[in-house]
Amino acid sequence: MFEEQLKLICKGADEVLSIEELKEKLKKSKKENKPLIIKLGLDPTAPDIHLGHTVVLRKIKQFQDMGHTAIIIIGDFTGMIGDPTGNSKTRKQLSKEDVIENAKTYYDQIYKILDKDKTKIFFNSKWLSEMNFEDIINLTSKYTVARMLERDDFKKRFQKHDGISINEFLYPLIQGYDSVEIKADIEIGGTEQRFNILMGRNLQKDYKQDRQVAIFMPILEGTDGKEKMSKSLGNYIGINENPNNIYGKVMSIPDRLILNYFNLLTDIHPDELESIKFNLESNTINPKNLKMKLAKEIVKLYCGEILAIKAEEEFENIFKNNKIPEIIPEFKVDKEIIEKDGIDIIKLIVTAKLANSNSEARRLLNQGGVKINNKKIFDIKIRDIKSGDIIKIGKLKFLKII
Amino acid sequence: MFEEQLKLICKGADEVLSIEELKEKLKKSKKENKPLIIKLGLDPTAPDIHLGHTVVLRKIKQFQDMGHTAIIIIGDFTGMIGDPTGNSKTRKQLSKEDVIENAKTYYDQIYKILDKDKTKIFFNSKWLSEMNFEDIINLTSKYTVARMLERDDFKKRFQKHDGISINEFLYPLIQGYDSVEIKADIEIGGTEQRFNILMGRNLQKDYKQDRQVAIFMPILEGTDGKEKMSKSLGNYIGINENPNNIYGKVMSIPDRLILNYFNLLTDIHPDELESIKFNLESNTINPKNLKMKLAKEIVKLYCGEILAIKAEEEFENIFKNNKIPEIIPEFKVDKEIIEKDGIDIIKLIVTAKLANSNSEARRLLNQGGVKINNKKIFDIKIRDIKSGDIIKIGKLKFLKII
Repeated sequence: MFEEQLKLICKGADEVLSIEELKEKLKKSKKENKPLIIKLGLDPTAPDIHLGHTVVLRKIKQFQDMGHTAIIIIGDFTGMIGDPTGNSKTRKQLSKEDVIENAKTYYDQIYKILDKDKTKIFFNSKWLSEMNFEDIINLTSKYTVARMLERDDFKKRFQKHDGISINEFLYPLIQGYDSVEIKADIEIGGTEQRFNILMGRNLQKDYKQDRQVAIFMPILEGTDGKEKMSKSLGNYIGINENPNNIYGKVMSIPDRLILNYFNLLTDIHPDELESIKFNLESNTINPKNLKMKLAKEIVKLYCGEILAIKAEEEFENIFKNNKIPEIIPEFKVDKEIIEKDGIDIIKLIVTAKLANSNSEARRLLNQGGVKINNKKIFDIKIRDIKSGDIIKIGKLKFLKII
Repeated sequence: MFEEQLKLICKGADEVLSIEELKEKLKKSKKENKPLIIKLGLDPTAPDIHLGHTVVLRKIKQFQDMGHTAIIIIGDFTGMIGDPTGNSKTRKQLSKEDVIENAKTYYDQIYKILDKDKTKIFFNSKWLSEMNFEDIINLTSKYTVARMLERDDFKKRFQKHDGISINEFLYPLIQGYDSVEIKADIEIGGTEQRFNILMGRNLQKDYKQDRQVAIFMPILEGTDGKEKMSKSLGNYIGINENPNNIYGKVMSIPDRLILNYFNLLTDIHPDELESIKFNLESNTINPKNLKMKLAKEIVKLYCGEILAIKAEEEFENIFKNNKIPEIIPEFKVDKEIIEKDGIDIIKLIVTAKLANSNSEARRLLNQGGVKINNKKIFDIKIRDIKSGDIIKIGKLKFLKII
């Protein structure tokens, strides 16, 4: 009776630990008419949420659509402590104000995906700041040093004789203990969270609770198809970007990512996914058309259907009819410098973030991918450029000189 | 100017870390007219204090005689938690009442050695129960996993894949933190406490205090001259034993322990120690006479001079004049069994704890070391034994049959 639900839940998941336990949980929830508690832990730094983050969030939304409750835990406790050794760059100390400010940023973004009425948000300082030394001795007694050192990053650092401070062993325990505190039924996270999520599962057993089911979602590749999606790598699609940007960026992904993006980023049914897979493998459809479907689908999720249709039209306009989009970024250049020395077009492209590196910009230029007012250019030094000129880089990127 | 003090302090010590720092501390204490704080940590189980324990206590007393203050820390905090994993046999959980009861036992005994007016006793639960999670993350950040695994027992267990629970890493930190809390100037302990005492020294530095000087005292050998003195091994001399027992037990130690016992168990001056050493090495004195001096000295410390003189007299009486002591232990035997089957003298000797093993008892018997009513016996089975008979084993042990 839960076969359809299980099919949806397993869609895209790297691993579900275990499906049997998940079935039991779903059965019990239905029988007792009591929603399951789906845990998501977030660290308290403020991100711009991009499609990489949505993989887990959409999975949670699926559960909400089935009537279950999401509990988001903001890990403010350790965030406010920071790194007492001062060694960690990632563990910046945050004030209470920072944490609240960052949390607000989350709210604005995650409710683009999650169902607000079925979401609770907790700060884990609530229970962790209440714990005393005895509680902590109890907590730390549940886990051995050897097992902690099995965690990949600890193992590597230990073997390399990089100092691991003992407090670092407390963080996975804290994260796991959050599951105990909220009596999580299911925790969803990226595969890189495997150790911490299993920790929660184990600790719940130690604290005489039913173990949470662990659902591990794969890490999304970025638009470059090379590395994981990440803001700092510039290969991301932010959910707050404008519809045309989102559409265009999706169109820029390599074809081999199409299926995975459908799988992880949209709500299309597993059966439809199968048919897309078939189409791709049998070459019975132009991948570009599939990509347009994907782009429209994704824009629809974050900007609504009307803007999705408009984005599609704009894309077709530009791509097929060689038109310029209505709104394009502007870039100010110094007239005097241009007239005196000319402008380095490579530098301009990189500075305006239309290419990620000098070499990428140079390649585009050499391949005829850079146009000024629709005319291909091949020289690096440009003198005859003026306010109002439109630079086009590749098929979809535009820049207006002001 | 502190040369004489340093000479006394270093007497018997295995290591002082460091003498330079110790000098500085003594100098500063004198200059500011402020006593140094000498830390001794005790676990909250209730021991019968024996001479093994007094090695450290006497060293503390030396400091008290120089005007300094002893702070005894009863480690009740971890004692009351016990071992949450339930694996440890030594870490029995104690109630508040147990702890207080045990502490009383300590008071009664340690004030036979320490100066009550210069001794303060703290329970470490006072400050440890006040610590919150943040304090503990701070504390645990001061030490790395690798350094903790350098501790001998951890190292061995880790290599043998014996599970070390993470809470076990907290105990040395707790013990070290006690030094921070009381701002200890000096910590004295047995060499087996080396790791924990150095931990206190390091933590003080982390908490921006002057590091405590560490004084490591050797482990005292038991009266058998084989293993460390311990109640469970039966090779101990309790400070609450009656004077004749103490005297007799000291007389039973192997000659090669004489010098060390003088060094670690009495207050004789280092210069006198030198002359005893000379006497022993040059064979210019009968070791038995030195042992009598030692025995009298030790009895004097715990029972007073009068009883020490009496114990010496009694010993001479028994040993030289073949007399029986005024008070001797009694042992009840079943008359019917004796008349029917005879009694196994080996078993009797071991049961009455006059020998440590059957083989020791048998050896004594074969060597003519067992007498009944002053008549050597060699048979194992004895039938003609009756109430009132005196059994003598070796030179000093007696038993009255009742």
